[in-house]
Amino acid sequence: MNYNPITKEILEELTGILGAKNVIVDKEKMENYSHDETPKEYAHMPDVVITPRTAEEISEVVKLANRHLIPITPRGAGSGLSGGAIPTFGGILLSIEKMNKVIEVDYDNMMIVVEPGLVTNEINAIVDERGLFYAGYPMSLLTCYIGGNIAENAGGGKAIKYGVTGRYVMGLEVVTPTGEIVQMGGKNVKDVTGYDLKRLMIGSEGTLGIITKAILKLSPKPKFATDLLVLFEDADSAIKMVPKIISESRIIPTSVEFMDKLSVHTTCDYLNEQLPYQKAGSMLLIEVDGTVEENVNQDAETIGELCLENNAIEVYVADNYTTQERVWSVRRNIAEAFMVYSPEQSLEDIVVPIANIAKLMPEIEKISERYDIKMPSYGHAGDGNLHTTLVKNPDTTMEEWFEIEEKALQELYTAVYALGGKLSGEHGIGIKRKKYMKEHEGEAELMLMKKIKMAFDPNNIMNPGKIID
Amino acid sequence: MNYNPITKEILEELTGILGAKNVIVDKEKMENYSHDETPKEYAHMPDVVITPRTAEEISEVVKLANRHLIPITPRGAGSGLSGGAIPTFGGILLSIEKMNKVIEVDYDNMMIVVEPGLVTNEINAIVDERGLFYAGYPMSLLTCYIGGNIAENAGGGKAIKYGVTGRYVMGLEVVTPTGEIVQMGGKNVKDVTGYDLKRLMIGSEGTLGIITKAILKLSPKPKFATDLLVLFEDADSAIKMVPKIISESRIIPTSVEFMDKLSVHTTCDYLNEQLPYQKAGSMLLIEVDGTVEENVNQDAETIGELCLENNAIEVYVADNYTTQERVWSVRRNIAEAFMVYSPEQSLEDIVVPIANIAKLMPEIEKISERYDIKMPSYGHAGDGNLHTTLVKNPDTTMEEWFEIEEKALQELYTAVYALGGKLSGEHGIGIKRKKYMKEHEGEAELMLMKKIKMAFDPNNIMNPGKIID
Repeated sequence: MNYNPITKEILEELTGILGAKNVIVDKEKMENYSHDETPKEYAHMPDVVITPRTAEEISEVVKLANRHLIPITPRGAGSGLSGGAIPTFGGILLSIEKMNKVIEVDYDNMMIVVEPGLVTNEINAIVDERGLFYAGYPMSLLTCYIGGNIAENAGGGKAIKYGVTGRYVMGLEVVTPTGEIVQMGGKNVKDVTGYDLKRLMIGSEGTLGIITKAILKLSPKPKFATDLLVLFEDADSAIKMVPKIISESRIIPTSVEFMDKLSVHTTCDYLNEQLPYQKAGSMLLIEVDGTVEENVNQDAETIGELCLENNAIEVYVADNYTTQERVWSVRRNIAEAFMVYSPEQSLEDIVVPIANIAKLMPEIEKISERYDIKMPSYGHAGDGNLHTTLVKNPDTTMEEWFEIEEKALQELYTAVYALGGKLSGEHGIGIKRKKYMKEHEGEAELMLMKKIKMAFDPNNIMNPGKIID
Repeated sequence: MNYNPITKEILEELTGILGAKNVIVDKEKMENYSHDETPKEYAHMPDVVITPRTAEEISEVVKLANRHLIPITPRGAGSGLSGGAIPTFGGILLSIEKMNKVIEVDYDNMMIVVEPGLVTNEINAIVDERGLFYAGYPMSLLTCYIGGNIAENAGGGKAIKYGVTGRYVMGLEVVTPTGEIVQMGGKNVKDVTGYDLKRLMIGSEGTLGIITKAILKLSPKPKFATDLLVLFEDADSAIKMVPKIISESRIIPTSVEFMDKLSVHTTCDYLNEQLPYQKAGSMLLIEVDGTVEENVNQDAETIGELCLENNAIEVYVADNYTTQERVWSVRRNIAEAFMVYSPEQSLEDIVVPIANIAKLMPEIEKISERYDIKMPSYGHAGDGNLHTTLVKNPDTTMEEWFEIEEKALQELYTAVYALGGKLSGEHGIGIKRKKYMKEHEGEAELMLMKKIKMAFDPNNIMNPGKIID
């Protein structure tokens, strides 16, 4: 694509629409908007950062961008892990940070209407007193924005029971790539009035429009939760347990998180944590929740016993807040622990059918050995979603690392697809995984995606360079 | 659109692809394929009926239809209520009746892979012995096909707790309107690898392609269920109870069905049923289910008490199969009971936010009085989805009826949209509601739908004349 540069006249137009303090061109201030949480080699500076406050302002900016052929990259909190918010072609970086209001809390319909720049956890903070919660939140809920969650269809640790973001989005207001303000869905629990535009927007990573308002469903908050730490000799036994938990106990746990030996050991060292399971080959962290304490305990017991019948070495029950926090802290700090070992990493987000995770593990081990890199695996095993991470060996050069990274990723994805899996479970494609789409997704599927993109965004100005070319 | 007629040569081509016994031109045999469950004035004869057995055959037929510019209308069991399976422009009626195999039951992933012509209830029959069920089924599960359910994103009485069809569709194989065979989704619990094509297909009423395979999620079957019959003086008290049940008890019931006085009386007369509630002004039929009997009973009791605190006259508990069946039989026979009174009806499928149902009821009453027609209201009040039905007064002529029907529908939809509602909760737009889309849906939304349709189906051969023009 050949985009036009941002001229002084265009800056004036932007200032006219948004006011001077919502148009930023200062290099130092713009630096923060040049990257998200993907490695720094993906970063790219915008030509201008804008902070609009209304859908109408955004609509005007989008129309301007079409007239002048300038790319627009929408951005949430910048906590993304696939480069979706990086202004790869420069142009306008549109930050939704000032659109962070709660518009309505509708307890009668058990819904909340919010602007996209609201920090996701704010929703839970507001509705907690009424015994409700927003069940679609991802693990980064303390920092991420709800708009970004919707654009990425963010997941989390509880998808096995509660599903992901998309299930809780009832309605959206969207500024399309041609500048129309469109209402999709609403507060109706069922709705088959035409194509499901809202569902198409969810997970489209800002390439089909900019979300300016969202109606979200709230749920009754479970009153009790218990966590089980289940220790296994090896990864294989732990992973083989995952599909059994659901199909044999018929209890749907809230989470089933997996950590391999490498992840647990590195993180316990980093945190100076002494958990009893430190010597085990791998572990599952299983949470069950519910409204009746007795049943939650009963469910936990049933699952614990099932694990012991299936090669678990030991089962620890974390039924108080302190112990639960200690355990979850290990799980949450894995990525950070490996950063200390080597800051050059490729954090992956592969997903396979849960019954196939056990078959994937030896493939990951082979790749790790072949390229002499550490590849810790951890993540949402209950959803088949693993954050297998390629960690650069500190002894290799950056040049070697980039070569190794690309080859190892190709082999990893090939193994994943052979098992019916996909590139990304919850982090998205963005720029980080775009080149792998061509090789692993069907040509006809990609063509349909391109046709949709062209139909929505004929000038290709909306977050170009993401997902597909 | 100007489509070409089906010539002898084209029939020969079809026979070459499908074999002679899968190409039907006999008028008498074709008559059954000219309508679904919408009133007979929507019926239209196809020029040929085909019964393909594979995606490859369908792909060849679709390519042929593009070459010769002939419309194709896909058809499931013909149980639809919006005319989606009616070959409005003649051409090829593609019946999926011979594609009715179960391809795989995958207990490890708790999924089933089926062909689209399978009767929905067959899935439950197969997996029941393992304590599982397919939670997406609609009320017509004994006759409808799963392919039709997906094309319509069919709902049912349990959406409030279990959601509708779409939640349980994990993957689809689809023949696109240009004849490509595309895999969408798969057995992955989470998947954000590109646009959500699968979700776009669900509910697109056969206008974006033909479903040839589906991967469906199974769920642990609840072991216990209890039904409450709650009697109220009037519709207003019953309807006002609906949002309260969820927001105040924080229990999510399986169903909350509403029947107004007219529906209950007419149906009890028709069935010669003597239920205690016959004299009440309106009633709610509330079901709760779960895995622990005690909790199910406790939930039912909590809801029952809440109803009594909020103007219910009486609460009856139906906790055995026979009583449950008697009650549900009344609910299921409403449409049939009114058919006896007057066979000319317009069965509607309006949906509003649940907190707004109470505001809708007086509007319906006004319309009923204004046009001197019966307008019984019943349906899935827990989802805000009412099957308000316009029943022709036997004394008026057909000419008068068509005029009344159109005016009354316009007024009904205007009232529904004023309350944040939509044309259809679960039956779809098809041809029956197409003309109302233009007036009630936003222009920009309709334009996006049209763009998607054109992108997928450039020759407009796939189920033309449905949803939008």
